[in-house]
Amino acid sequence: MRKITIEKNYLPHAEGSCMFSLGDTKVLCVATVEEKVPPFIEAEKKDQGWLTAEYSMMPRSCNERISRKKLQNGRAQEISRLIGRALRACVDLEQLGKRTITIDCDVIRADGGTRTASINGGFIALVLALKKLHEQRLIKTFPLKGYLAAISVGFVGDEMVLDLSAKEDNIADIDMNVVMMDNGDLVEVQGTAEGHTFSKKDLDEMLKAAKKGIEKVIKEQKKALDNVQCYNVQ
Amino acid sequence: MRKITIEKNYLPHAEGSCMFSLGDTKVLCVATVEEKVPPFIEAEKKDQGWLTAEYSMMPRSCNERISRKKLQNGRAQEISRLIGRALRACVDLEQLGKRTITIDCDVIRADGGTRTASINGGFIALVLALKKLHEQRLIKTFPLKGYLAAISVGFVGDEMVLDLSAKEDNIADIDMNVVMMDNGDLVEVQGTAEGHTFSKKDLDEMLKAAKKGIEKVIKEQKKALDNVQCYNVQ
Amino acid sequence: MRKITIEKNYLPHAEGSCMFSLGDTKVLCVATVEEKVPPFIEAEKKDQGWLTAEYSMMPRSCNERISRKKLQNGRAQEISRLIGRALRACVDLEQLGKRTITIDCDVIRADGGTRTASINGGFIALVLALKKLHEQRLIKTFPLKGYLAAISVGFVGDEMVLDLSAKEDNIADIDMNVVMMDNGDLVEVQGTAEGHTFSKKDLDEMLKAAKKGIEKVIKEQKKALDNVQCYNVQ
Amino acid sequence: MRKITIEKNYLPHAEGSCMFSLGDTKVLCVATVEEKVPPFIEAEKKDQGWLTAEYSMMPRSCNERISRKKLQNGRAQEISRLIGRALRACVDLEQLGKRTITIDCDVIRADGGTRTASINGGFIALVLALKKLHEQRLIKTFPLKGYLAAISVGFVGDEMVLDLSAKEDNIADIDMNVVMMDNGDLVEVQGTAEGHTFSKKDLDEMLKAAKKGIEKVIKEQKKALDNVQCYNVQ
Amino acid sequence: MRKITIEKNYLPHAEGSCMFSLGDTKVLCVATVEEKVPPFIEAEKKDQGWLTAEYSMMPRSCNERISRKKLQNGRAQEISRLIGRALRACVDLEQLGKRTITIDCDVIRADGGTRTASINGGFIALVLALKKLHEQRLIKTFPLKGYLAAISVGFVGDEMVLDLSAKEDNIADIDMNVVMMDNGDLVEVQGTAEGHTFSKKDLDEMLKAAKKGIEKVIKEQKKALDNVQCYNVQ
Amino acid sequence: MRKITIEKNYLPHAEGSCMFSLGDTKVLCVATVEEKVPPFIEAEKKDQGWLTAEYSMMPRSCNERISRKKLQNGRAQEISRLIGRALRACVDLEQLGKRTITIDCDVIRADGGTRTASINGGFIALVLALKKLHEQRLIKTFPLKGYLAAISVGFVGDEMVLDLSAKEDNIADIDMNVVMMDNGDLVEVQGTAEGHTFSKKDLDEMLKAAKKGIEKVIKEQKKALDNVQCYNVQ
Repeated sequence: MRKITIEKNYLPHAEGSCMFSLGDTKVLCVATVEEKVPPFIEAEKKDQGWLTAEYSMMPRSCNERISRKKLQNGRAQEISRLIGRALRACVDLEQLGKRTITIDCDVIRADGGTRTASINGGFIALVLALKKLHEQRLIKTFPLKGYLAAISVGFVGDEMVLDLSAKEDNIADIDMNVVMMDNGDLVEVQGTAEGHTFSKKDLDEMLKAAKKGIEKVIKEQKKALDNVQCYNVQ
Repeated sequence: MRKITIEKNYLPHAEGSCMFSLGDTKVLCVATVEEKVPPFIEAEKKDQGWLTAEYSMMPRSCNERISRKKLQNGRAQEISRLIGRALRACVDLEQLGKRTITIDCDVIRADGGTRTASINGGFIALVLALKKLHEQRLIKTFPLKGYLAAISVGFVGDEMVLDLSAKEDNIADIDMNVVMMDNGDLVEVQGTAEGHTFSKKDLDEMLKAAKKGIEKVIKEQKKALDNVQCYNVQ
Repeated sequence: MRKITIEKNYLPHAEGSCMFSLGDTKVLCVATVEEKVPPFIEAEKKDQGWLTAEYSMMPRSCNERISRKKLQNGRAQEISRLIGRALRACVDLEQLGKRTITIDCDVIRADGGTRTASINGGFIALVLALKKLHEQRLIKTFPLKGYLAAISVGFVGDEMVLDLSAKEDNIADIDMNVVMMDNGDLVEVQGTAEGHTFSKKDLDEMLKAAKKGIEKVIKEQKKALDNVQCYNVQ
Repeated sequence: MRKITIEKNYLPHAEGSCMFSLGDTKVLCVATVEEKVPPFIEAEKKDQGWLTAEYSMMPRSCNERISRKKLQNGRAQEISRLIGRALRACVDLEQLGKRTITIDCDVIRADGGTRTASINGGFIALVLALKKLHEQRLIKTFPLKGYLAAISVGFVGDEMVLDLSAKEDNIADIDMNVVMMDNGDLVEVQGTAEGHTFSKKDLDEMLKAAKKGIEKVIKEQKKALDNVQCYNVQ
Repeated sequence: MRKITIEKNYLPHAEGSCMFSLGDTKVLCVATVEEKVPPFIEAEKKDQGWLTAEYSMMPRSCNERISRKKLQNGRAQEISRLIGRALRACVDLEQLGKRTITIDCDVIRADGGTRTASINGGFIALVLALKKLHEQRLIKTFPLKGYLAAISVGFVGDEMVLDLSAKEDNIADIDMNVVMMDNGDLVEVQGTAEGHTFSKKDLDEMLKAAKKGIEKVIKEQKKALDNVQCYNVQ
Repeated sequence: MRKITIEKNYLPHAEGSCMFSLGDTKVLCVATVEEKVPPFIEAEKKDQGWLTAEYSMMPRSCNERISRKKLQNGRAQEISRLIGRALRACVDLEQLGKRTITIDCDVIRADGGTRTASINGGFIALVLALKKLHEQRLIKTFPLKGYLAAISVGFVGDEMVLDLSAKEDNIADIDMNVVMMDNGDLVEVQGTAEGHTFSKKDLDEMLKAAKKGIEKVIKEQKKALDNVQCYNVQ
């Protein structure tokens, strides 16, 4: 597994932020809190908040430059939806109150694992924003259900690889992204075999390895958030 | 599991097509063969073909009308990518030769399971198109690696449900889509818990149920394609 | 004239619907009723309803596949406007009340006459929706002014052809679409000569033939709607 | 019928142009000649030219300002198609050679009849451009099949009105646009009854009146083009 | 400096308008008054009006035709912003009251200096609109701070040129646009050296020449607006 | 003047890059070299290269989040054009050869002066990329004409302010951006008075102050690029 670096409060004016590095992959994760909820929640008259995410790659994040127009594609929207769905799993939206947290994940440099780095760094930004709301006494109970992290795992030929780099990802036969809580519960499992297949046994092995990887990520997250002491639900 | 109906060759002028029904869900699946490959294959000078898919819902496929503009969204693109990826797993793209097969999946009526119905019906359209190419002696070896099908499975409270209807899907805590070959190998596993989590045990149970469901779907696919006797790789 | 087939209530969950076939041309016509009116009626504070239509071809409705992007063109918008204008002629919008009926016409297969098939099938969907409103006692008087149908007629060389197929349409020198009420009154006459001209005598002959064709279509419409006995005003 | 004014060669740098006024309606019509043909003609390897038209209203052409975004709508595309189709009827595209003439019709002021003014003024611009090509000996035979003009006619209550102003158009029950050659042959007949119907007798009367109106327009066109003496096919 | 021609009230139905010619450059400038302010003023609850501008070139305004799609580009937006900013400098927005004036500048023919012609003609349209508001007693004090005009100046090699034509603009090493009030105060100075540089001395010389040019333009503006006697702030 | 920080080679995989900070304003500037030229240079068969720039703000660069859709506006395009034009002034495009350098300027944090920071940081990225090309012996002569920097200057009431922060910019009556070479020659002067005016004396004072500011920026640029010793034309 590649080295994790977390630069907390990278944008001090934002509610929560960090520059999250996973090897050479680097994602700027920023949480914005707005005192409104989307129309579909307003319409249902639910007394709850919302969390959404937006993922985007920067033009020269890859080895070759990609035009800004081509970067706004289906893949980016799919990953945005994944990040939002994953992070919603660890927040108590009712306790959050009638506000929306938007997590912007902008990929500064892409060397594989941009979606897992976005979830992991997005979690940091989210918790920092929740902490700010809590400190300002805008929310009574700290609405975090637990720590959450993501990791990729796959097979390159017969060899299982954890936290694939771009080079490994390109030649991998099977690619799986796993999102998990700190209690071991699964939030999202996306196993994909582009032009290949995999057995139930492969799946089990990959899940086992992913669990170990996620535990390491959560350890780093806890370290980064230690000073703010905000990781327990009160 | 809901009733499956397959109206083969629904559009006789297309290379392959069927109207695939899964309970009240109804998807028109059409395969088009074009004698060209996308630029990225042309650029790599690979001697192979390609398969791509496009998924779209019709404005009144749901209970309420959705405007055409709103139907072209990230969700539709994500499902299009899933269908294409899944169906590419069962085709030998090198044996297909330098041509592209496009699978259009247009949802006439949506009552849950539109993505699995699209994969299942898309498979029928694909095989019919391959058969036409084979009969016209445009391809020598029949480039099908095996039968492939998809099913959804989830938990509504504590109860596991196979092949969720729209009503069940809306109240499900966990939702998983599984794509599998007839030999039991996995092609895609997408387990999602919107605002919830699930254990490894839950995952195993869901996969077990999914396998049984997929076997039933493949039985129907084999029946539908029986007369054309094209399901073995030669 | 080609054979007409009407599959009534093709989408049981919609207010009105039918699959309308005209020879090999096949259009899914669906009526949606919404309890609101467009802003321009709201602004004028008129106490009336509205009817609008949307026409779209499916990617593989023609012999060659057309990309979804290319299908959203000026021609589709022009035909949508024609269908809406034509069907508004047979509805009493004041008696309809403050609601909007949207007629979606999606061309499953295109072999010429897709706009006339859309009007003819759209009429069926419209009347079924009006009937539902009437049965639910949401409208007091049945707001239908009369039966309405459309037909194409043209000249291929010196020979007049009624209800042109795609093949005939491509080689036709003159092409005319006529929309008429069951009492013989005209609603729309669109005679077009791409690169050609036609005399007043040609026009009269075409209108005469169109009238006979429209009478046949209305006979089929009446048969299809017979059981609902809704073709009289009041 | 309203007064016609034709300012010939309004844009001296263009191949052909005029400011065409019909009462208070004012349209700038400009013909551009380009030495290329659209892909669909190139593909069919036809040895002919093409003519296309683009119609657009300016933001303050009407009494109230319309935003530029709203001006690019289906109606504008529909009218563009009509103008192009109409003007193609009077040009011999084979004699034109492998070039494209684009007729831009920009409505400076709109007081009804913008589409007929566009066709009438577009004809002037077209002939001036053909004349320039002929003088430069780029085409051998003058490729004009005859004079062509358009007029609107309708019914306001029981009264028939020729060349409707915006005010009359708004209250008209029936509205018809007629495009005709100088020999009386019809090119396009578009009779529309928004929420109304009309009899065959009404149609005949309107066509009769339209013919007289068109004769007057052609008289003005001939006068405007007199000095260039280009109105005979050689 | 090229000849200036001003056709006042070119569109009598608009609040203010003129056709402004600067040599062969011709811009239709139209002022529209609407009784509303943009959201950002509404939000700040300011008791003032607003002025905005939209600049657009017509397809055949240049020697070669430019497609309508290509005309909606960054350059057009940049010039629109410049025109709006410049004209806002001469209007007292508080005295204008809660209304918006939109200045549409549509370039009929482009031979260099389209942005200065738009500002100069836009000023005429603006004053005519203010005059109409004043005459209708909708505004008490005439909210004009002074006359305002614009001119371009540049260097072609060593020679300074005032009011550059398209031909001169293309070969100019330095190009500067100056907007000035009649009292000599500057509103906007945009000096640009595409691939070149210029000294402070060059800048001073250009500003001196621009001042003389602007004085000539204002003389023409005063003449054109003479009869309306509206050029003094009361 | 605010503190300048330059993190050179922020993206090691790019041809040239830096994170440029100007007080709290932070811009990631990246140079990409591609071995092709835009169509308009290809068309003119000129034997030269090209330089273009793209400026974009990130959603949470300001105090409030701005949606990604709103960020792609005319202002961004205007600034992109300014950066490209400015940087082209210091490069010898003929010596660059048939290649394009794209300078991406993505604003991580915006506290005023984003366009000057983009030019200043873009210059660093550009020189680093040129150096790489020179080291790889792809270009013979180092194609840099001199150092180039930009600064903003304005008046807040009667007080002149150099290098305006967002807060100062919002209340400034006059705002000017100056781009200058190290020899004191001007490249771009954009003085703007939103709703105000300024005298020639004000302009002269601002230019004088700007010159001093630019000299300080160039000193920092020289320091940052010292080790690469690439700032002299050979």
